[in-house]
Amino acid sequence: MPLTRITLYQGCSEARIAAISAILHQTLVETFDVPAQDRFQIIETPSASQRIYDRHYLSGTRGDNFMLFTVLAGRPRATAQKSAFCRLLAQRLQQQLGVDPDDVMVVIQFNHVSDWSFSKGQLYAEEAP
Amino acid sequence: MPLTRITLYQGCSEARIAAISAILHQTLVETFDVPAQDRFQIIETPSASQRIYDRHYLSGTRGDNFMLFTVLAGRPRATAQKSAFCRLLAQRLQQQLGVDPDDVMVVIQFNHVSDWSFSKGQLYAEEAP
Amino acid sequence: MPLTRITLYQGCSEARIAAISAILHQTLVETFDVPAQDRFQIIETPSASQRIYDRHYLSGTRGDNFMLFTVLAGRPRATAQKSAFCRLLAQRLQQQLGVDPDDVMVVIQFNHVSDWSFSKGQLYAEEAP
Repeated sequence: MPLTRITLYQGCSEARIAAISAILHQTLVETFDVPAQDRFQIIETPSASQRIYDRHYLSGTRGDNFMLFTVLAGRPRATAQKSAFCRLLAQRLQQQLGVDPDDVMVVIQFNHVSDWSFSKGQLYAEEAP
Repeated sequence: MPLTRITLYQGCSEARIAAISAILHQTLVETFDVPAQDRFQIIETPSASQRIYDRHYLSGTRGDNFMLFTVLAGRPRATAQKSAFCRLLAQRLQQQLGVDPDDVMVVIQFNHVSDWSFSKGQLYAEEAP
Repeated sequence: MPLTRITLYQGCSEARIAAISAILHQTLVETFDVPAQDRFQIIETPSASQRIYDRHYLSGTRGDNFMLFTVLAGRPRATAQKSAFCRLLAQRLQQQLGVDPDDVMVVIQFNHVSDWSFSKGQLYAEEAP
């Protein structure tokens, strides 16, 4: 039930986007207990002037390839899960794609299972919020 | 007080975007008790490689015209309202525009009335959150 | 710890985008107690047909240059802070850039400090959510 918006840099290749997408999803599956098929992502690649970020705040040095993952998930996760997710995501991006961990930012939001309809106009769960 | 981001497919015509927008708004008005003039939407039409979604998870088969409605509303709504909203939205998209209900996904978030300023730097409500 | 999505109009110049970005950030620093370096923004400039907004709802008259600030912050803020933020933002946009206060809309969301990882796969805070 996560929906992730991945904000990348203009010119990021389709092959690289696909690899980043796969790493993000695999990491959610493993750390957030997400079903393997529950994969929903929007990618955006704004121009440099439309991606505004401090180069150093709580990072070593963010470079031009800074990437931001904004995850909206349908059930709260424990801090330990969030911690594992962020750690593993940065590790895999570095190991598999050479992404500088300084360039990886994550922001997570939660709503409730009754806030999702995957198709056919049916709520995922009819429980009270 | 809802703000909706509608994620459509590249090449969706302006006429079709306008029709989808109108159906979304009318459905919010009726099921979420939204004032008729309270209409705020952002449309985005990312390329196919930037819209990543499973074709079958909790759906029959999502096609190339998959559409995602991300609604942010200023007051909580009961599950019955959310259910009615999703059901009616998918029904109308199908009846009026021939949209496959398998292609319609909805995600809802809520904040508070004191989190909105519509204009002039004035908060909509000054109540405590 | 705020992340702001700024939705502007197509054709907004890079100089004007930079000025709007700076005003937004300075106002967050002053009213939301944000560190000066904690600056993260995504700008988007959808076409007119992809920015749908009522011209008059809770505003005088919104013009073609309507702008929307969607702020996600990591800790709750008091209503007085939100009020000051919105008021000062609209004032400065008007005084420094001639923006009509009728054109300025703000929506705020909050999550928790344990929902942010700024870099290196490390959560900003390990506290329970």
